Amino acid sequence: MGMIGGGRGAFIGAVHRLAALMDGQIDLVCGCFSQNPENSLASGLSYFLPDNRIYPTYQEMFAREQQLPEGDRMDFAVIVTPNHVHFDPAMMALDAGFHVVLDKPMTFTLDEALKLKAKVEETGLVFALTHTYSGYPAVKQARQMVAEGKLGNIRKILVEYPQGWLSAKLEDSGNAQASWRTDPKRSGKAGAMGDIGTHAHHLAEYISGLKTTHVCADLNIFVPGRALDDDGAVLLRFNNGARGVLVASQICAGEENALKIRVYGEKGGLEWAQQEPNTLLVKWSDRPTEIYRTGNNLTSSFALHNTRTPGGHPEGYLEAFANIYRNFAFTVMARKDGIEPRPEWLDFPGVDDGVRGMQFIDTVIESGYNDSTKWVPFK
Amino acid sequence: MGMIGGGRGAFIGAVHRLAALMDGQIDLVCGCFSQNPENSLASGLSYFLPDNRIYPTYQEMFAREQQLPEGDRMDFAVIVTPNHVHFDPAMMALDAGFHVVLDKPMTFTLDEALKLKAKVEETGLVFALTHTYSGYPAVKQARQMVAEGKLGNIRKILVEYPQGWLSAKLEDSGNAQASWRTDPKRSGKAGAMGDIGTHAHHLAEYISGLKTTHVCADLNIFVPGRALDDDGAVLLRFNNGARGVLVASQICAGEENALKIRVYGEKGGLEWAQQEPNTLLVKWSDRPTEIYRTGNNLTSSFALHNTRTPGGHPEGYLEAFANIYRNFAFTVMARKDGIEPRPEWLDFPGVDDGVRGMQFIDTVIESGYNDSTKWVPFK
Amino acid sequence: MGMIGGGRGAFIGAVHRLAALMDGQIDLVCGCFSQNPENSLASGLSYFLPDNRIYPTYQEMFAREQQLPEGDRMDFAVIVTPNHVHFDPAMMALDAGFHVVLDKPMTFTLDEALKLKAKVEETGLVFALTHTYSGYPAVKQARQMVAEGKLGNIRKILVEYPQGWLSAKLEDSGNAQASWRTDPKRSGKAGAMGDIGTHAHHLAEYISGLKTTHVCADLNIFVPGRALDDDGAVLLRFNNGARGVLVASQICAGEENALKIRVYGEKGGLEWAQQEPNTLLVKWSDRPTEIYRTGNNLTSSFALHNTRTPGGHPEGYLEAFANIYRNFAFTVMARKDGIEPRPEWLDFPGVDDGVRGMQFIDTVIESGYNDSTKWVPFK
Amino acid sequence: MGMIGGGRGAFIGAVHRLAALMDGQIDLVCGCFSQNPENSLASGLSYFLPDNRIYPTYQEMFAREQQLPEGDRMDFAVIVTPNHVHFDPAMMALDAGFHVVLDKPMTFTLDEALKLKAKVEETGLVFALTHTYSGYPAVKQARQMVAEGKLGNIRKILVEYPQGWLSAKLEDSGNAQASWRTDPKRSGKAGAMGDIGTHAHHLAEYISGLKTTHVCADLNIFVPGRALDDDGAVLLRFNNGARGVLVASQICAGEENALKIRVYGEKGGLEWAQQEPNTLLVKWSDRPTEIYRTGNNLTSSFALHNTRTPGGHPEGYLEAFANIYRNFAFTVMARKDGIEPRPEWLDFPGVDDGVRGMQFIDTVIESGYNDSTKWVPFK
Repeated sequence: MGMIGGGRGAFIGAVHRLAALMDGQIDLVCGCFSQNPENSLASGLSYFLPDNRIYPTYQEMFAREQQLPEGDRMDFAVIVTPNHVHFDPAMMALDAGFHVVLDKPMTFTLDEALKLKAKVEETGLVFALTHTYSGYPAVKQARQMVAEGKLGNIRKILVEYPQGWLSAKLEDSGNAQASWRTDPKRSGKAGAMGDIGTHAHHLAEYISGLKTTHVCADLNIFVPGRALDDDGAVLLRFNNGARGVLVASQICAGEENALKIRVYGEKGGLEWAQQEPNTLLVKWSDRPTEIYRTGNNLTSSFALHNTRTPGGHPEGYLEAFANIYRNFAFTVMARKDGIEPRPEWLDFPGVDDGVRGMQFIDTVIESGYNDSTKWVPFK
Repeated sequence: MGMIGGGRGAFIGAVHRLAALMDGQIDLVCGCFSQNPENSLASGLSYFLPDNRIYPTYQEMFAREQQLPEGDRMDFAVIVTPNHVHFDPAMMALDAGFHVVLDKPMTFTLDEALKLKAKVEETGLVFALTHTYSGYPAVKQARQMVAEGKLGNIRKILVEYPQGWLSAKLEDSGNAQASWRTDPKRSGKAGAMGDIGTHAHHLAEYISGLKTTHVCADLNIFVPGRALDDDGAVLLRFNNGARGVLVASQICAGEENALKIRVYGEKGGLEWAQQEPNTLLVKWSDRPTEIYRTGNNLTSSFALHNTRTPGGHPEGYLEAFANIYRNFAFTVMARKDGIEPRPEWLDFPGVDDGVRGMQFIDTVIESGYNDSTKWVPFK
Repeated sequence: MGMIGGGRGAFIGAVHRLAALMDGQIDLVCGCFSQNPENSLASGLSYFLPDNRIYPTYQEMFAREQQLPEGDRMDFAVIVTPNHVHFDPAMMALDAGFHVVLDKPMTFTLDEALKLKAKVEETGLVFALTHTYSGYPAVKQARQMVAEGKLGNIRKILVEYPQGWLSAKLEDSGNAQASWRTDPKRSGKAGAMGDIGTHAHHLAEYISGLKTTHVCADLNIFVPGRALDDDGAVLLRFNNGARGVLVASQICAGEENALKIRVYGEKGGLEWAQQEPNTLLVKWSDRPTEIYRTGNNLTSSFALHNTRTPGGHPEGYLEAFANIYRNFAFTVMARKDGIEPRPEWLDFPGVDDGVRGMQFIDTVIESGYNDSTKWVPFK
Repeated sequence: MGMIGGGRGAFIGAVHRLAALMDGQIDLVCGCFSQNPENSLASGLSYFLPDNRIYPTYQEMFAREQQLPEGDRMDFAVIVTPNHVHFDPAMMALDAGFHVVLDKPMTFTLDEALKLKAKVEETGLVFALTHTYSGYPAVKQARQMVAEGKLGNIRKILVEYPQGWLSAKLEDSGNAQASWRTDPKRSGKAGAMGDIGTHAHHLAEYISGLKTTHVCADLNIFVPGRALDDDGAVLLRFNNGARGVLVASQICAGEENALKIRVYGEKGGLEWAQQEPNTLLVKWSDRPTEIYRTGNNLTSSFALHNTRTPGGHPEGYLEAFANIYRNFAFTVMARKDGIEPRPEWLDFPGVDDGVRGMQFIDTVIESGYNDSTKWVPFK
């Protein structure tokens, strides 16, 4: 793979490399790691790349890699830049014939998302969006249990993503993560809702198999001087009549990354919390709650395929992330080999999820600051 | 005390007796335990009452008890009937000069609640409303920590009360609890929101010291044929600018009585869950989360006063309930003895909380089925 | 009931009164609450007793109560004095024809215990020992599941009771609890093992239905100047070949009252922790762990009989304690009424449990300071 | 690196590859993956190795790799064969000048261990033993807090490692893991104590900084026909007077891999459980228990160095494993570069830990089946 962004010190770039390399299926072969060519070079060298595969611009990277013989050139591009630098390199990579892995939210605007979707469909290339949390085995199991009707018709979804790290104005103290995530020029029109609300929304739809039809949002900016929402709550209506509540906040002081989802159907409910990801609580109206555990009771083929170790050996965030990469890689290799990918390989977030995420942002932004209209149809 | 309602087999009446008797401060001396005089008599005898203190009607009970010499006659009346039989006996008890303990929600309508408030103020008698959950020591501690500014200005309140017991149409199978709670003639205009939403709302205001100013609710009836809400979610705005989310549902299959509240301020957050009531999580932006435990780290005078055993000896629902009774009894005795009640004794829910509960019901019902108006001012 | 010991400020006396009164089946009618007659009187008055039923000595109490007509006189005596004042009043109460409730450990020496057992058998009176922890519904359920063979043959028992309150020399700072519990003249030959080790041992035998045959103990005194064990661990062998480990310690700094037991059989295991007593984890070799909850999934007749509230309304230490009193009271009343007590009523710890506790103390003390003999047969 | 053992389907070999590759510091360059040359070749090809670096025997591998120019040849050998095939390849690798990573327990006998230690010291090569659990950041933090005296003098260590997977005679059903682990010819003289007891013992000494001086063990074989211990408990005495209890069992039906340790000092205690590895409970005598979390409150330099993601992004078993590899790699690279390794890099288990593990096995085996001698000095 070739990486765009992810120079030394960048959080999410490092995560992508760990996740991609872990399984021995993917090598980092080239990259343009920074807008600053010197920084790009230094970063690439520290990742043990030869200097002729470290590029000063992504434009040059695509151009030069295209000219390398197959087998030598990168198979796909990973784009881990801030949101406003997603669309251009992704389009260019696809035009150059490279498969793409892209960080979420997919683009800066919904319009870009739709164009990117068209491009992916036009080129037929493989495209992955790193909605990490859907990579956990317990989440796969939850999705499959809902799909098999174990819970009966779904009635209620509670999903919450409280963080506390933006309780104070961290962006003023030089924190790079805080700076770009609170900056409308780099993040887009949403703050917390774009950064973490999209994860929560994706998880709700992924597990339930439902589609949001209407939202009623209340967005807030608690920290003075901040330009984007740092807190919000959304009432949701789904296409089967189910109702939901989504909370995404970055001012819940003392919380880390406390994504949690509960899904209730007529017969039972599921509960999963990202910070203890190897446990899936399965609740029943008529018998004791069961504790499903990764590597032990997560017996759906999708959960098993995404599990690396036996029960009691906790898998974490990086393994969930790696599952997206591994499935993407299996799918790319299947394409190369001309074989049909297994359904488990194809189970990674793609361009449709990305469009849906941008629609979510547009819809909650429209609703969240509007005190008169109650329900806004999902875009 | 004298009891109205609470015949053999009634759930909440038994809880009231356990809670009242536990501390050796209160005796059951008389009662009218059922509309059916024979059932009332049989119940009273099984509670070891002499037959001349078991009455066929509450009207007769008040009349006869009034005529007994002080010291012999009951000091106060406890009313544990369904909601539609709260107002009349409560008014009559106050008119007859008896202090009153009343189950929540306080009345059938907001109008009754306001009249009852006027009567309490007019008579100067002691009045308690059994919002049980505010009786837990950890809740007292939470309230005091907020009041002392430990968390800074409050920004966000998440309160949820999922239950699952009404996931199916239990009221059709002869379950007495389900029957009256889903019956508009006995429960009033709200189902889940009246039964448990009021608890959640009371807890949010009790701990935070804030007042709700606006609500945006989505109420639902999931079980076909049911007349009252069995599920709902409410966005809340508070008088200091804080925002909240309240979920109350009785169709969350597999949940028991999972009341939980989180309150976040500028500096930290609190988390308390009713099903593990002896633990209060105190979260901080800049240091590790702390586990405060009943009998050990709950050192506020209000928490200590409401704790009976040392750390590690779990206290439960009945003790929380008993705290309301004990504080009520201390206050009544202080009145008798002409002394000033301590602030800790006066810390039990009263008629103002009852009015606020009825206002909550009226407001969420107005909002919850209205798809056009977003924010409804709190009544 | 009449109480011996338990003056104002005494911890366990207050617990006994709360537990006894809670269910409305038992009244406190008399007592000798202190060796100091003035303190006894003041205590009794504060418990709302008439002064003629407050006695300066227990000898006088038994003599005077015996002369009262049945129905007026107390039915049974509760003895809540330190260990060295258990035997004499208990023997005297039985000789006077009163049923007895006694705090554990039963006596000061094993010899006394055997004499008391003979007396109970001779008189045929009802005798209860307050091994509180066996009163929890989840413990009843655990016992019944083992008895029904749900786990298969039992192989391993892990029981632990870490406390931290004696990590420093609290007895030097005037703490009454610490003073008598660390004093061989009042506690007997064991410290932690007598105070809490006996509880752990009782629980292990109660749930498993097994009998200890051999112990290998290591007892320690960590706090300089202390005369009795404040820490210990015991390897156990049981009569069916099962093995166990028992830890009892009062120097585990930071622990409250963390009694926990795990019992493993051929097919599954059970886990119960006193500090979250409404949850019983049931583990299986071949399917997910189940969470049994009080009032919900604890469906054995013994668990149900000892449960007061529906699922999700936590019951605690006082309710467990009250279960012993209520079952004792039901048994006493059945005797009075000449009816056969139900098996559930008879399920409270008695004189045989008390003898076994004293045997446990004798055996672990013999083993615990002996560095040469490995296995000591249970006395 | 070059790998010995770890053919397709082998559990621990796959774990080693994942752990080694994750950080982009180490490549798999060659291997002898099976005694069966065809299987070795197929395995190597599936790991994307060229066929000329896949060897039929480890002897040939060392010989051929030695002849490659530096930079091309492997830097170190990883040995992931069953216990009885540890010593020979390890000695040979060291003799050939390769650094070594070895799975635990280090050797088949204590005698081999001592010889291997001499060889490591003689060659001066870098040697790592994969006692995985000491790689967790929370364990590093615990160790450092003890070393800094935060808890005061250590008094009590409780360490337990219950598993349930050998509750039935799994080795009869063709399970490869069960077969070699229960076979004295491949595992050595200990079963559970060698497989998991050594992990527990290492963790106790690693965190506490103490050394075991005496043990009193009870070892058992519960499953009929099994030749090695499948269950055991050990009383421990440490060199500062502290006492401990170690439980290791593979017949605790329903348990996964429930390694847990508690360490108590004069002022407080620590609790860590492997199945929720990102939480370290820090308990205090005089203030609330604190929840330290990976990436957030684990601020010791050793914990930080071994953490990859921010708080709330759970790290797991593979990351702990990878920490050993990364530190080993940093140390090897420092040696190459002639720089002094940082103390954090040197913090991985080595040959002394391996010797100590073999001494533990010898000592508990001597004690565990001996019913007369109580305390056996640590070898």
